Amino acid sequence: MMDVTGTIAATVFNEDTLKAYLASTPRLSHVFGGEVDSLRIHEIGDGNLNFVFFVRGDKAALALKQALPYSRMSGGARALTCERLAFETKALQIFARLAPAHVPAVHHYDAERSLMAQEFLSPHIVMRKGMIEAIAYPHFADHISTYLAQCLHGTSDFALAATEKRELVADFARNIELCEITERLIFTEPFTNSPNNRWTSPALDGQVAQLQSNVALKLRVAALKQKFLTRTDALLHGDLHSGSIMLTPDDTKVIDPEFAVFGPMGFDIGILVGNLLLNYFAQPAYEASVGERGPYGDHILAMVQEIWSGFAFKFAALCREAPGDGILSCVGLESSDDARQGRNAFVHAYLDEVLQDTISYACVEMIRRTIGRAHTLDYDLIVDDGLRAKAESASLACAVEILARPVGVGSITDLCRASRDFARSAGRQPQMP
Amino acid sequence: MMDVTGTIAATVFNEDTLKAYLASTPRLSHVFGGEVDSLRIHEIGDGNLNFVFFVRGDKAALALKQALPYSRMSGGARALTCERLAFETKALQIFARLAPAHVPAVHHYDAERSLMAQEFLSPHIVMRKGMIEAIAYPHFADHISTYLAQCLHGTSDFALAATEKRELVADFARNIELCEITERLIFTEPFTNSPNNRWTSPALDGQVAQLQSNVALKLRVAALKQKFLTRTDALLHGDLHSGSIMLTPDDTKVIDPEFAVFGPMGFDIGILVGNLLLNYFAQPAYEASVGERGPYGDHILAMVQEIWSGFAFKFAALCREAPGDGILSCVGLESSDDARQGRNAFVHAYLDEVLQDTISYACVEMIRRTIGRAHTLDYDLIVDDGLRAKAESASLACAVEILARPVGVGSITDLCRASRDFARSAGRQPQMP
Repeated sequence: MMDVTGTIAATVFNEDTLKAYLASTPRLSHVFGGEVDSLRIHEIGDGNLNFVFFVRGDKAALALKQALPYSRMSGGARALTCERLAFETKALQIFARLAPAHVPAVHHYDAERSLMAQEFLSPHIVMRKGMIEAIAYPHFADHISTYLAQCLHGTSDFALAATEKRELVADFARNIELCEITERLIFTEPFTNSPNNRWTSPALDGQVAQLQSNVALKLRVAALKQKFLTRTDALLHGDLHSGSIMLTPDDTKVIDPEFAVFGPMGFDIGILVGNLLLNYFAQPAYEASVGERGPYGDHILAMVQEIWSGFAFKFAALCREAPGDGILSCVGLESSDDARQGRNAFVHAYLDEVLQDTISYACVEMIRRTIGRAHTLDYDLIVDDGLRAKAESASLACAVEILARPVGVGSITDLCRASRDFARSAGRQPQMP
Repeated sequence: MMDVTGTIAATVFNEDTLKAYLASTPRLSHVFGGEVDSLRIHEIGDGNLNFVFFVRGDKAALALKQALPYSRMSGGARALTCERLAFETKALQIFARLAPAHVPAVHHYDAERSLMAQEFLSPHIVMRKGMIEAIAYPHFADHISTYLAQCLHGTSDFALAATEKRELVADFARNIELCEITERLIFTEPFTNSPNNRWTSPALDGQVAQLQSNVALKLRVAALKQKFLTRTDALLHGDLHSGSIMLTPDDTKVIDPEFAVFGPMGFDIGILVGNLLLNYFAQPAYEASVGERGPYGDHILAMVQEIWSGFAFKFAALCREAPGDGILSCVGLESSDDARQGRNAFVHAYLDEVLQDTISYACVEMIRRTIGRAHTLDYDLIVDDGLRAKAESASLACAVEILARPVGVGSITDLCRASRDFARSAGRQPQMP
């Protein structure tokens, strides 16, 4: 089984073959002190695209990820090259260098077998699950805004010399297959009559029909898609929802950057914010089913605001303190108050645009997670159709309303206020049939 | 000499070795009806980076371009990979497909020898030379605006599906060496105290010192450099000055796209406009030396205006008529007046930004061609220091003044009016010492 012809790459590892592989790979067996036989291995079974194995010994543990030449979710029906794991590994290594506190360490990558071994995260859980259970994350906004500022600044023209940046852009420019999924699932299908869409029917039928015939909305989404296609501002995680974050109340790690590509910074921040807001909109339904959850909704809105303000603050600080050979280095770094103020104004004008993008991409994410192909557990776990439809309807209406506003005027407070208003008015009104 | 080990690639062809190569390459000898011995070959000797051979027989002719692993201008001192010829060939083939009337046909490409054969253009001359001789080009604006609209639209998200576009972007993402030249010579050196800069001294010393300590100007240029680094809107020629255009009064061909890379559309149009305006500013000096040239300056300003208006008109028409699987196809192509008007407004908002970029890049080009490393014959041919300084000073002042205006308000008419005003006031005032 463990031949080196490369044909093995199309085969899923099992417990025996993985143990044999670990035993024959000194770098990995070394992690376990050479004691491979007694390792406990299980495949966690919930990856959309890949297979993930947890490998635990008495003194150490690793998470191993294997990509096969198809999407796992499709049962083999949808071909995908294994190259995605190479992009993920490279992105993890870059992000780990820039934001070491918030990215798991990569221990091993085997291109031939499409296998990557990374730090095992324990007792971390997936953030989406934690939020569904109303666990408070008092440090999350601080952690993730640090991660975002360090990774987005560090891969942008604010930090890198032009040639160094172009080399990185070229390295990720071929991660096209996964970008295609993003482009189709986020920006195209939900706004067209695609058979891949699904929503709570018939409750949302009217809203979906309206949305899909709203020309102004579709043009706004086309502009956001175009921005995703034509900007290479920074290396994005590319899929930064609450399922790509593993955390405890004290520690935050960002995983799974297989969609990594250069794009507009607001895309990453917006996807994250959109997913937190979906959970916010689900709160009344959770309360109706399992009872009072305290001010968890307020906690979410506070996180959203602090993510943005923390990011903007830390990003601007990095531009001041770590200009490197970046875009502003030609403006006389050592020099006058005039130059310092000018550079500062430049960075803040840039951040103004990132904020508008963040708000807009958050809204698109809320829409596509409600009526497109890929939904989230935040809503899917709500058993009662009426309660779920009420939450979904409110988040849809909120997102559509915000996207209809003139471009360039929103604040993160507006976004949170609108979310609160739409959630409350949904709570007061009986659900329309 | 003609071995196939690849070592030959580092050797310049001479008449004998090139004849032997043509004889042994059926596709090329066929062009000349097999009569290779009688071909007349000469190296034209004026390439900055490469060697160019004109090969003429009785019935046919070809232009052959050879790239060596260094910049020709540097005499071998500056290493450059031969890959640039691969990018040039690929770009020529794409542009020739999109704008066949205005791009020479490629007949042959030999990667091993870094040799490319293209259509021989006769009786075409280089446009810069024609403008210096005050030759009128009544169809140029129409031709080049067609070229620009067809090439920029055809390689953009307005025409291509997302994945097809990403493949093309990735193909050109490694043309990094030549981008580095653009970034340094256009956006960096002229605005810093670089030993590579040169200008008419001492006449321009004061203006240059002012410009290089103008923080607001340098921040504006940093924003334009950032845009060049972070946009992948369309495949640019990348070096579209009047020396990259060969024409007759009736035919226009664009050559030499070795700097091809995806970038903001306004970069290509702006570089072209900037070079035409440099020649406009040189007109009074030509008149002072060789006498009245008639309304040639007016002809240039009319060309600049028609290039923009022609481009905008043709680009918008292509968006309407050839939407393909592009960014606006999701907005219901077949549908209502509402959708049609919405798509049209989208395209025109996009063109508004391209126009602002065009004006800005034109100004940066005027500055760098006057005080940076690479000047143009338009000014260099003016023997009289005083006359040359007067023209240069006027174009510098004009460019700096326009770049100081608030972003987003300029029209192409403003640009031409400002050029006329600055040129006239320079003509009226005695040149400052």
